[in-house]
Amino acid sequence: MTSASNTTKNEDQIHAVIDDRVRAIGDKAVEALVAKAAPGFVSFDALPPLQRIGSEAIRTRLQEWFGWYDGPIGYEVRDLRITAGDDVAFAHYLYHVTGRMTNGNEVDMWVRTTMGLQKTEGAWVITHEHNSVPFDAESGKASIDLTP
Amino acid sequence: MTSASNTTKNEDQIHAVIDDRVRAIGDKAVEALVAKAAPGFVSFDALPPLQRIGSEAIRTRLQEWFGWYDGPIGYEVRDLRITAGDDVAFAHYLYHVTGRMTNGNEVDMWVRTTMGLQKTEGAWVITHEHNSVPFDAESGKASIDLTP
Repeated sequence: MTSASNTTKNEDQIHAVIDDRVRAIGDKAVEALVAKAAPGFVSFDALPPLQRIGSEAIRTRLQEWFGWYDGPIGYEVRDLRITAGDDVAFAHYLYHVTGRMTNGNEVDMWVRTTMGLQKTEGAWVITHEHNSVPFDAESGKASIDLTP
Repeated sequence: MTSASNTTKNEDQIHAVIDDRVRAIGDKAVEALVAKAAPGFVSFDALPPLQRIGSEAIRTRLQEWFGWYDGPIGYEVRDLRITAGDDVAFAHYLYHVTGRMTNGNEVDMWVRTTMGLQKTEGAWVITHEHNSVPFDAESGKASIDLTP
């Protein structure tokens, strides 16, 4: 069993991973984000395809995402919950992404994130991530105007 | 650290949780599915809202989902990966959902699932689940025609 003090320590470490991520997105720091993805990382992203595998796929996706924005990307995390064992953990949160795209469109949308992590050589790395918005079954449209 | 034999045992137990789920969906067995959801369960579902919390919310959602189908629901799991520690685990997979709805529409769609689990009193329960399809940024439509 995992002791209470280790659980707190691991939760704090994963909280730091997520804080680092928020900063890296603000800085559009692709390599800092790629460095947290384990080899064999499996991504279920908000945009197609169904899944991407490996850090090279993540790099390409981040470059594309950051390139769409004319200026900074707002990324506000809410309702973060971290569940940590000794060497396996998962976390989930909602995030509010905002900003102006190069095509002039304003983005202002809430997205759900779940991540799976493993501790390797004393450090937590992300081995799986799932980002999405729900969709409306009647219209078939993504529900990009929901708020928590 | 988690021993290799315990990891295998825990992975086998979680595999059984997922096998049970597939059977319960085939049987439209709402209560069998609700029983695997921990108190405080957080669901990020393929349909709105952004999140649902608690087993009562899950029960309502399952009853609605099963009620839409005229006859059986096909639910085929693919690319399942389980990452298990001693008392915290996560799993992810793609599933192919098929069937005929009461409004005559045929469903034939691939969906992504991530689940977070905790071992409580020797048994794994699901504390978090995230189901989604991606969406097309140009059209704003959910991408319900993707295949792995």
